[in-house]
Order: sequence, then structure tokens, then C-alpha cells
Amino acid sequence: MTRRSRDEGVRRVEILDAAIDRFGRNGYENTKWADVADDVGIGPTALYHYFDSKQHCLYVILDEALDELRERFDAITAEHADPRDALRAVCADCFALSEREVLRNRVLVAEQALLSGASTAQREEQARLAGREKTRALEVAWARFLADAMRQGAIPERNPRMLARAILGLYNSIWHWYRPDQTLVLPTLAEFFGARMLAVAGVQRDHAPVV
Amino acid sequence: MTRRSRDEGVRRVEILDAAIDRFGRNGYENTKWADVADDVGIGPTALYHYFDSKQHCLYVILDEALDELRERFDAITAEHADPRDALRAVCADCFALSEREVLRNRVLVAEQALLSGASTAQREEQARLAGREKTRALEVAWARFLADAMRQGAIPERNPRMLARAILGLYNSIWHWYRPDQTLVLPTLAEFFGARMLAVAGVQRDHAPVV
Repeated sequence: MTRRSRDEGVRRVEILDAAIDRFGRNGYENTKWADVADDVGIGPTALYHYFDSKQHCLYVILDEALDELRERFDAITAEHADPRDALRAVCADCFALSEREVLRNRVLVAEQALLSGASTAQREEQARLAGREKTRALEVAWARFLADAMRQGAIPERNPRMLARAILGLYNSIWHWYRPDQTLVLPTLAEFFGARMLAVAGVQRDHAPVV
Repeated sequence: MTRRSRDEGVRRVEILDAAIDRFGRNGYENTKWADVADDVGIGPTALYHYFDSKQHCLYVILDEALDELRERFDAITAEHADPRDALRAVCADCFALSEREVLRNRVLVAEQALLSGASTAQREEQARLAGREKTRALEVAWARFLADAMRQGAIPERNPRMLARAILGLYNSIWHWYRPDQTLVLPTLAEFFGARMLAVAGVQRDHAPVV
């Protein structure tokens, strides 16, 4: 990697960080693309070297978030032979978040609707379709994991796709109201909502399954 | 009531119905205010006799929805002496919906974010604040009901406000993906998600409490 491309990589991450911070705190619609440029200390024209538009940047944020969420899900479920242990570990990991990840979750849930509306610009449209497909694939991965846990008798038999939607729906709902600067801290959130997500699946945090 | 004011009342409901249908199926942003006028068969100018703007109409829809949700919640919880029966009845009632109410739920969850951003127009701002306050009040009513159920030993002791958010969060998540013309019918949704909402509270659909 040349010095120049390394510098460009660093700059790209800085722009993504600034955009996540702005989008997460003030909302995507309320954020001016020029403000993101200001935060990073570059001109608006230089910004277009990295992203075609504010929307393109948003799609890249969503796309990278979904890649990371999927990697974490796959790694943790692969680590545990017992499906109940795996589910407990996944539900705990859901709350092991940096401030950047909390803000990114806020962006994910607030702007999910944008993934359903088609864009006319080709590069934006590719990013949008990729994000939508990855959202679907993550839900399918959850459903497969849950179906497998049902087959092993670890959790009660139910429609696995709907159960995945219920667990993810409960989890996603948190980021509609939770803000990282709130007095309510992440460990409290993890304690409470981690157990509620397990209850949806029919699993107690530390004990036997609950039908 | 004069004939004229009765006619105006009927027309107002027609406009609200048309707006709920458009907003619920195509999204608020994608709906042109003039299309709503077309649906009802009046000119855009006549529309302004009833609503100041598309946004004002949206706020009225949200406001009326929250009034109805609150009335139903209050009536059903008052009907049942046993808190577990009351919770089961509320969770069943949540899915006793007309197509209009399903579409309105879609509008409610999709446009909830609009309730947090201030508007410059006075009448819109009043409607926005009323909607926000009623959303908060409904959550408080749920939390009070749950706290009372905890005191009576009907459901396990937990933070009632967070439990209210968890149950409502799970319920609201459904309307992000459910469409009334889907093959998945409401009774199936009620069967599955009603039981999962009860599981979040620590209650089984038909039996003893689950901790």
C-alpha cells in the first residue's frame, strides 16, 4: 500500500466516523453534507473524492455495519456448541458497544426505510441493494440458528423466521429512544433487554428453557 | 349540527382515510398532497379548508391514533380484575385491527421520528407536541399498569418503564415489515406476537406466570 492510499484510507474512516456521529446525534435529514466536511477539515469538493453524495455515504455506513453485525453473529454462534449458550452470548454481545456503535445503531434503525426506496444514481442504487440484501441475510442467519436450536430441543418450536423478527425487532426498538449520553448506561440496558430478548426465544438467562 | 358542518365532518374523515391509505402504503414522503385531494375528488385549495398542510394532516392522524390506542388500553385494562387476564386481553386486542388500522400503525411507526423535530408553523407545532405528549402518556399508562401487576405478584418484578418500552418496542417493530396485503394474516400474527409480548412480560398465554 502506498503512503497516499494509506492516507486516503485514514481520511475515509475519519469521514465515516464524522458522518456516523452527525447522523446518529442529529439525524440523517438534519445533517448537512458540508458539516461532515467541516468536521474532518476538508473542503466539500475533496469530500466527493471519497463519496458520491451524503446518501452514498449513508449506504456505505449501513453496509459496513451489516457486515460487522453478521461477522460477530457468525463468530459467536460458531464458538458455542450449546445453542442456549450461543444465544445467551449473542444477546450479551448485542450490548458490547462503543459509543460509535451505539450511534451507528441509531442510524441503522432510523434510516432503514431508505433501504426500501430506489435511487436513480447507479452507485447509490448498488449500495442500497447491497444493504437491503445484507439486512435480509442477517435475519435469515438468525432464523437458521434458531431453527437449529429448535431441532436440538434447546428452545421451544416456533416459526423461526418470525422468532428472528421478534428478537431483532425488540433489539432494534431500543435504538429509537436510547442515546449514548443518557444516564441509563449500557450494562443496565444489556441486563434488562438481553434477558427480555432471551425470554422472547423462550430461554432464561442462566437456567433451564422456558416454554 | 347543521347539514353543512355534518358534510364537512364526513369530508374530513374521507380525507383522513385517503391520507392514511396513501401514507401507509407508499410512505409519507412519497405521497403528494394533491394525490390525497384527487382520491377524495376535491381540489387542492379545498383541501386547505380542512388541513393546513400534508404535515398538519399527518399530525392529526397520529394524534387521533394515539387517542384511540389510549382509550382501548384504558377500557380493556379496566375490564379485568386479574392483571394477567388484562395483559392477555390487551395483547390480543393489539391485533384486532381493520386494514385502515394496520395502515395507520405503519404510519405511526414510520413517522414517529417526525414527532421529535420542531416545526415552524404554529398549528403544526401544536399538533406535533400533542402527539409527542400522547406517545409518552401511553407508555406511562402501560408502565403504571405493569407496576401494579408487579405489586400484585401477577408478573415478575422489573423496571416497569423499561418493560413497557420492551413490549411496545416489540409490537411496533411488526409494522415496519407487515403489510395488510401479505399472505401472512392478522390472526397468525396475533397468535405468534401476542404470545411473545406476554413472554417479554413473563406471562404465558394460558397458564401460570413464568419468571
